[in-house]
Amino acid sequence: MATTAPAQVLVASNRGPVSYTRSEDGTLTAKRGGGGLVSGLSAIGPDAGAVWVCAALSDVDREAAHGHTRLAPEDTGGQQVRMLDIDAATFADAYNGIANSTLWFVHHLLYQTPLEPVFDEGFRSQWAAYEAYNSAFADALAEEAAQGAAVLVQDYHLTLTPRLLRERRPDLRIGHFSHTPWAPPDYYRLLPDDVAAEVLRGILGADRAAFLTHRWARAFADCCAELLGAEVTHEGEELTVTHEGRSTRIGVHGLGADGEFLRERSHRPDVDERLADLREQIGDGRKVIVRVDRTELSKNIVRGLIAYRRLLRTHPEWHGRVVHVAFAYPSRHDLAVYREYTAEVQRLAEEINSEFGRGEWRPLILHVKDDFARSLAAYRLADVALVNPIRDGMNLVAKEIPVVSDDGCALVLSREAGAYAELGGDAIVVNPYDTEETARALHEALTMSTGERAVRTKRLAAAATALPPQRWFLAQLEAL
Amino acid sequence: MATTAPAQVLVASNRGPVSYTRSEDGTLTAKRGGGGLVSGLSAIGPDAGAVWVCAALSDVDREAAHGHTRLAPEDTGGQQVRMLDIDAATFADAYNGIANSTLWFVHHLLYQTPLEPVFDEGFRSQWAAYEAYNSAFADALAEEAAQGAAVLVQDYHLTLTPRLLRERRPDLRIGHFSHTPWAPPDYYRLLPDDVAAEVLRGILGADRAAFLTHRWARAFADCCAELLGAEVTHEGEELTVTHEGRSTRIGVHGLGADGEFLRERSHRPDVDERLADLREQIGDGRKVIVRVDRTELSKNIVRGLIAYRRLLRTHPEWHGRVVHVAFAYPSRHDLAVYREYTAEVQRLAEEINSEFGRGEWRPLILHVKDDFARSLAAYRLADVALVNPIRDGMNLVAKEIPVVSDDGCALVLSREAGAYAELGGDAIVVNPYDTEETARALHEALTMSTGERAVRTKRLAAAATALPPQRWFLAQLEAL
Repeated sequence: MATTAPAQVLVASNRGPVSYTRSEDGTLTAKRGGGGLVSGLSAIGPDAGAVWVCAALSDVDREAAHGHTRLAPEDTGGQQVRMLDIDAATFADAYNGIANSTLWFVHHLLYQTPLEPVFDEGFRSQWAAYEAYNSAFADALAEEAAQGAAVLVQDYHLTLTPRLLRERRPDLRIGHFSHTPWAPPDYYRLLPDDVAAEVLRGILGADRAAFLTHRWARAFADCCAELLGAEVTHEGEELTVTHEGRSTRIGVHGLGADGEFLRERSHRPDVDERLADLREQIGDGRKVIVRVDRTELSKNIVRGLIAYRRLLRTHPEWHGRVVHVAFAYPSRHDLAVYREYTAEVQRLAEEINSEFGRGEWRPLILHVKDDFARSLAAYRLADVALVNPIRDGMNLVAKEIPVVSDDGCALVLSREAGAYAELGGDAIVVNPYDTEETARALHEALTMSTGERAVRTKRLAAAATALPPQRWFLAQLEAL
Repeated sequence: MATTAPAQVLVASNRGPVSYTRSEDGTLTAKRGGGGLVSGLSAIGPDAGAVWVCAALSDVDREAAHGHTRLAPEDTGGQQVRMLDIDAATFADAYNGIANSTLWFVHHLLYQTPLEPVFDEGFRSQWAAYEAYNSAFADALAEEAAQGAAVLVQDYHLTLTPRLLRERRPDLRIGHFSHTPWAPPDYYRLLPDDVAAEVLRGILGADRAAFLTHRWARAFADCCAELLGAEVTHEGEELTVTHEGRSTRIGVHGLGADGEFLRERSHRPDVDERLADLREQIGDGRKVIVRVDRTELSKNIVRGLIAYRRLLRTHPEWHGRVVHVAFAYPSRHDLAVYREYTAEVQRLAEEINSEFGRGEWRPLILHVKDDFARSLAAYRLADVALVNPIRDGMNLVAKEIPVVSDDGCALVLSREAGAYAELGGDAIVVNPYDTEETARALHEALTMSTGERAVRTKRLAAAATALPPQRWFLAQLEAL
């Protein structure tokens, strides 16, 4: 596959493929991370001279990065990695203040608008940090890139980098990929006018800007048209945005699940062990509804629990015959609103168990500590997968569970997840705000015939793995 | 003007032109209300046989309405009024539950989406009440209307009535007018799918659906296209929505201020008296920033106070030289979130006075008790009008203050108010979420030269009164 890659490829993302911890003896140890991008970049092979520019995310990372312009491939598992030593305060303002508390909230429509956001002087200093952080990436990429190299800039952390990089290095081919949804213009306009325009123009600095679904791609183009007065042209499903004399192609690549990896990984001994534990907790002969999420405001865990409670209230025939396994892993606990949300999830879970639990039947099993092997064990057990985000760029869990489930599963899926575009036809689709509908969908999923479930699961798994990470990555590169 | 009216005109709105109170001797007394619609309907004169169908809003109203199919014109100030005796529980569910807590929130983008709304079984019973309430209006209108009469149905309380009425009386000409903004499709889709479609189809039951600005009209058409698959055609700025073989024209009528009435009313003795009181509270030679709102979540009073505080922090030259007169009148105090918002406004106001107040200078005068004469007195005094809603159908205060202000005023105006479409060119325009920008705008407004202020005020007043209520009403009727 390496033959399709250009002479040099660079990737830029906030989180890199490696992070550092300090061992007891004081030395620094590199730990290789996972995820679609790590897997994707492996497609072009170790000989392509690929460089990954990322930020140091912790003090230990900063120490590892400090003074080294480039970490050696043997320390990083194969890639050339340049980890940027951005000072902690700038990083915190850019990452927490702007990326996670502002852009993330805008694209997922999460604000309680009567009171939030308030774009005050504190916001302005965070915004300056975001600009500095994006500039640091542009500087590093400009230094690292060979003539005519291809640069793939990732996500909402790095919206300004494409334009800043083009100013420094007009010879490069620059792509940007958004892993989030994109807000409709009326909501995107919450941002201060100059900031809103700068983000759009930043991404338009790329030759090609890509999204997970056509829906988010169109929303981006709508924002460019309404806020910048840019011209948007269509050629079939392909869009082009022209602004200030430059054209940016808008692409769509729906990242899929890595079927091969998941099937192998989910049958290793650590998963088998957790599977046995879970089976014992659940009890014999009971149906299993599984959800696995970070405890992220957009994931809609609270309404999912309300819907499950409603199912148990309206369908007493399920008492003792179903267990909901909900894994809600920690996320952004530095933000108060996330801590409150987690507390609400835990409160509701206790309520449900105390309202319905009897004898050895515990209707809800909630785990809040991250454990990948246990997640895979739950995937294998799932009779029903519940994926009900209020808004989600893609949602890979919706793609992974049908691939891994041992006996096939019925998928209850929010129409606001990007995955809906590919999986909607074989899922039971819900409006995520409608807990009555979601409760009915759970009942429908639980009562789906074995034959129907098998047929649908097969199609869901096929659609889910249509564009696995390596092909997803190469497709971007080829299109660029 | 009565000559342009058709044989018979009917108006339907939640609130009618009259309400009842019980006197000490036990008898019921009718009190005539105000507002654009009351004023508008007067355009067609008392001889046109106009009928106004409205809901009883209180137990005393219900008692007055009970048993009378129609109230006599002499009891209502001229119009024929039919007040519907809808039972209190149905009314509360329709009015508070659906209209004010759901449709209002959707169109103003007010939800804290991670937790609200939850469309559960309680919502479903409220929705049934809203359907019953809309049916009661359709039944009454069908009874009252002469052959071929024109019916003007008002606002988000009565979105289903046009279609229900058409089913009963296909001979009528039916118009609907939305006094609120309209949500973009991505936010409108929060509503349960069947409810979202029913509201759109309900309004499309009209021959013509009208809005306060082109922006809201387009948002409505976008929702029809995306959710119903309706066909939207353009002819210049005029839109037509075609669905299920019927076409509905989409119109725009930007309700203006009633200049004649305001100029006269604001110079009556009660206003003069309050003007003197306010002048004394403010002190000599100080500039005055005025805002007058219901304490409604969309009005953005909290960020307005934050911006004023920021002005005082960054421009100490204004200390002792400016006073902010903020009237925040009670609104929807039956909803907890409104009570909390009001408390936040009061807390911030105290903070500002305690941070900056010195000697006899009180930088902020906040009143929370409704007093129309005092509002007009404040209008007269205004050097600067602050109108910064996060989203607003029109906002008549932005139109009224330039008309009434004695010495002309500079208008700081949110670009999310409908009034922006007509007044934006002569206002200092702000993003309502951006308190830094709003603080700068207040400074710019305070320092605007007298000449510039006079010229702009004149143009603002002219634009504000371009379509006063009577002409606004007749324009709808003629277009229908």
